[in-house]
Amino acid sequence: MTIQEIRDYLSRFVGAVELAGNADELISGPAKIESAQKGQVSFIANEKYTRYLDTTAASLVIVHKSVNVDEFSHHTSFLKVGDPYTAFVFLLQKFATPRTIALKGIARTAVIGEGVSIGEGVSIGDHVVIGDRCTIGSNAVIGPHTVLFHDIFIGDDAVLFPNVTIYDGTLIGKRVVIHSGSVIGADGFGFAPQSDGSYVKIPQMGIVEIGDDVEIGANATIDRATMGSTVIGRGAKIDNLVQIAHNCRIGEDTVIAAQAGISGSVTLGKQCMVGGQAGFAGHLELADRIQVAAQAGISKSFLEPGIALRGYPAQPMREQLKHEAMLRNLGAMKEKLNLLETELKQLKNS
Amino acid sequence: MTIQEIRDYLSRFVGAVELAGNADELISGPAKIESAQKGQVSFIANEKYTRYLDTTAASLVIVHKSVNVDEFSHHTSFLKVGDPYTAFVFLLQKFATPRTIALKGIARTAVIGEGVSIGEGVSIGDHVVIGDRCTIGSNAVIGPHTVLFHDIFIGDDAVLFPNVTIYDGTLIGKRVVIHSGSVIGADGFGFAPQSDGSYVKIPQMGIVEIGDDVEIGANATIDRATMGSTVIGRGAKIDNLVQIAHNCRIGEDTVIAAQAGISGSVTLGKQCMVGGQAGFAGHLELADRIQVAAQAGISKSFLEPGIALRGYPAQPMREQLKHEAMLRNLGAMKEKLNLLETELKQLKNS
Amino acid sequence: MTIQEIRDYLSRFVGAVELAGNADELISGPAKIESAQKGQVSFIANEKYTRYLDTTAASLVIVHKSVNVDEFSHHTSFLKVGDPYTAFVFLLQKFATPRTIALKGIARTAVIGEGVSIGEGVSIGDHVVIGDRCTIGSNAVIGPHTVLFHDIFIGDDAVLFPNVTIYDGTLIGKRVVIHSGSVIGADGFGFAPQSDGSYVKIPQMGIVEIGDDVEIGANATIDRATMGSTVIGRGAKIDNLVQIAHNCRIGEDTVIAAQAGISGSVTLGKQCMVGGQAGFAGHLELADRIQVAAQAGISKSFLEPGIALRGYPAQPMREQLKHEAMLRNLGAMKEKLNLLETELKQLKNS
Repeated sequence: MTIQEIRDYLSRFVGAVELAGNADELISGPAKIESAQKGQVSFIANEKYTRYLDTTAASLVIVHKSVNVDEFSHHTSFLKVGDPYTAFVFLLQKFATPRTIALKGIARTAVIGEGVSIGEGVSIGDHVVIGDRCTIGSNAVIGPHTVLFHDIFIGDDAVLFPNVTIYDGTLIGKRVVIHSGSVIGADGFGFAPQSDGSYVKIPQMGIVEIGDDVEIGANATIDRATMGSTVIGRGAKIDNLVQIAHNCRIGEDTVIAAQAGISGSVTLGKQCMVGGQAGFAGHLELADRIQVAAQAGISKSFLEPGIALRGYPAQPMREQLKHEAMLRNLGAMKEKLNLLETELKQLKNS
Repeated sequence: MTIQEIRDYLSRFVGAVELAGNADELISGPAKIESAQKGQVSFIANEKYTRYLDTTAASLVIVHKSVNVDEFSHHTSFLKVGDPYTAFVFLLQKFATPRTIALKGIARTAVIGEGVSIGEGVSIGDHVVIGDRCTIGSNAVIGPHTVLFHDIFIGDDAVLFPNVTIYDGTLIGKRVVIHSGSVIGADGFGFAPQSDGSYVKIPQMGIVEIGDDVEIGANATIDRATMGSTVIGRGAKIDNLVQIAHNCRIGEDTVIAAQAGISGSVTLGKQCMVGGQAGFAGHLELADRIQVAAQAGISKSFLEPGIALRGYPAQPMREQLKHEAMLRNLGAMKEKLNLLETELKQLKNS
Repeated sequence: MTIQEIRDYLSRFVGAVELAGNADELISGPAKIESAQKGQVSFIANEKYTRYLDTTAASLVIVHKSVNVDEFSHHTSFLKVGDPYTAFVFLLQKFATPRTIALKGIARTAVIGEGVSIGEGVSIGDHVVIGDRCTIGSNAVIGPHTVLFHDIFIGDDAVLFPNVTIYDGTLIGKRVVIHSGSVIGADGFGFAPQSDGSYVKIPQMGIVEIGDDVEIGANATIDRATMGSTVIGRGAKIDNLVQIAHNCRIGEDTVIAAQAGISGSVTLGKQCMVGGQAGFAGHLELADRIQVAAQAGISKSFLEPGIALRGYPAQPMREQLKHEAMLRNLGAMKEKLNLLETELKQLKNS
């Protein structure tokens, strides 16, 4: 791909792209600025990396339009854009080799149940098991060893990596991506305590619904509802080893980082961001665009959109930072207290 | 099922069931009170939901015997019981369709080792692998893609969902349920440090023993003992993504919520309740019926039965709540300190 | 194995081994000191267990060379060494039965891609799927149901347990052990936020490189780099349910306990020890030999080798313990403050 072709491609996504350099040079692929070689393209999105421009061997660097590129080496060409990071992401997509998870068609070793509807262009990998009455949308990819119970709907262009397990009744939207080892629709953790200390299992009769364009990482777990649905909203992104319990509702475009745990019947608004290892008590609600810090413990509802939460029990960022500053200041408080005690004694004695 | 039939069924489990309404109406299934339709049954276990009784379309609602049902809509019938929640759980079990995880018999694609003993009525799914000398109890279900190493005992009526891995020598009791992705009996994390900073692996030669009526969620891990057994007591319930390390002993009817982590050689008593994401240091012991709050960090043994623990490092609830109140009060303490400082200065100057 | 043979075997690993007792007695296997029977060997590495020497039925006990064994029962023999614990670990390795994960050769139900190179003595289990152009080193073991995407390198003597998933391009060193359910090389969690609140996926084009002698527990996740490699250094040990995000570099012989989470682009030095459930913010660095307490939250880099970190946000052990002591002392501070207030009032009134 020539630099001119890259320029034309990017201008379809990120608006004006100004070229300084050699439009005809061939670019073979992307690399990090500190390790890029001749023939490769990289980017600078953060001023502190600008120093690499003096020494990089990259043939092309995508930079912010405000960068004065004249001062840098003449073997490097530049594309100047408003948002170099997003431009580079689109360029990565261009260079990414499509991953073959399974070949087109149905592998000879796959086992397909009765009454299954399979769309055009589907790829079903080796040893896949698909239960009765499932629907597989057009161009969907079901990786080797993935197991679908009965009555499951998989939307067009969805990609299930190998070793995924989908329990019965799950509805999965278009273009959804689920990485290996994740389990969707297992029973919620519901047991009714009996007077002798033992438990009776509460049947988990609901399902999981996953909206379009959701991506779920590896070894995550999303439990089916007791009744009704556990819902993952359109565009939500869920990282590795996340737990989402029964009856949760996760808002559209909400992002949940690795190892976070959402207890039963929690409702998260749209475009929230939940940090890694954060935990939620059950039956609470967060408004839209709330940001939860890593390892925070959310113990009650927060209904003001757009706030940031932190700490255990979590509180709004401003209060929590004030609280943490006070904690750091505890030594000084103690010293002052001791000083006052001494002075008071002296005063009494005088 | 008619309301009369439901009444008869429930009276076998929860004692006296009083009917107010139409014994002959047909009920098709259960639903949540806020979304129940005509022909469905729901329940009210909590007074704050009583308001829904004015407007619900449910044909039948199970309520506490103290509720005066005369004031509510005449298209709804009522069953009055001592414990509406438990009554409804039994009703859910009645309406739940049995899930088909694998068909009766041994799937053509399953691979069975030598000297395996298989009980009556067993279901072994597609692509299952069972090692040598395993015993599969009567009516047990082994879901597709589940792998059993050698010398494993599976009790009668146990259910292993798809994609479970059971390492060699594991003993699994009757009616045990293990959800997808869980790994039972992997090596404990034991390595002996050497003088050059590297490690020598400590062979993990023990096994895992799981008592009757245990349920284990999805993607949980329970490690084999170094010597002897890691033991999960009868009736214990273990949620998704829980880690139980080598040589632990979990008491009967103890419940462990998602993402909790129990370090090596920990002993938990009977009927304990461990909150989500709680963590335990190794080699400690909890007495029976202890409750551990979510995200707590247990750093030492607690031997008084029935107490509640919270915080990091965790302490008994009363002390911890007092401590947390003091923390919240830190700002007031600081103000008072500054005030005293000022007053003392004035006093000295006067 | 006779006691004399055990003595000879151990002297190859741990230097001088002094025998007190019956060199000809046969030993059948190892056991814990409190449950050892006649014919078994156990060990005492910790003085507080010495009391068991009075009553143990073990035929052989390995003890520290300083222990005066004459005072203990005459049916027990002793081997006196400098490091009884390490000696016992080597003895466990001697007695451990090699686990059969898969038979030598390629199982009939395995599916092997094109251009795969398979070394001598390899064992490939049932239902294994291996993609195109993979290399499987000599004597490597690929457990049943494990899935390898394309272009993967597995070193000599590596052991992959069942139900492991390895994404394309992963490089795995010699003698690496990966337990069931782990997912290596899934996409890093990278999404570029768009102005409408939705996200564009950042292609994850890098790979994972795992050095020689690494062991990875069950259901762990190690994500591929965005560009370049996520690197697990030689000899590192990673426990169950650990998350290692894209672009991390884990140093040689570093140990990470269960459920810890390492965010993107973190660099850990050599011989670090990370406690269970600890969490790391992204883009930070720890020096060599740093110890991180369980549940700690590391929010910035620490570049002094060998220190210990604890708390949230984590700080060096000495500061953190001082801080925790101050917190425990808060009640006393409050009382003193109230006392001063009273005294000051009295003083003013007098």
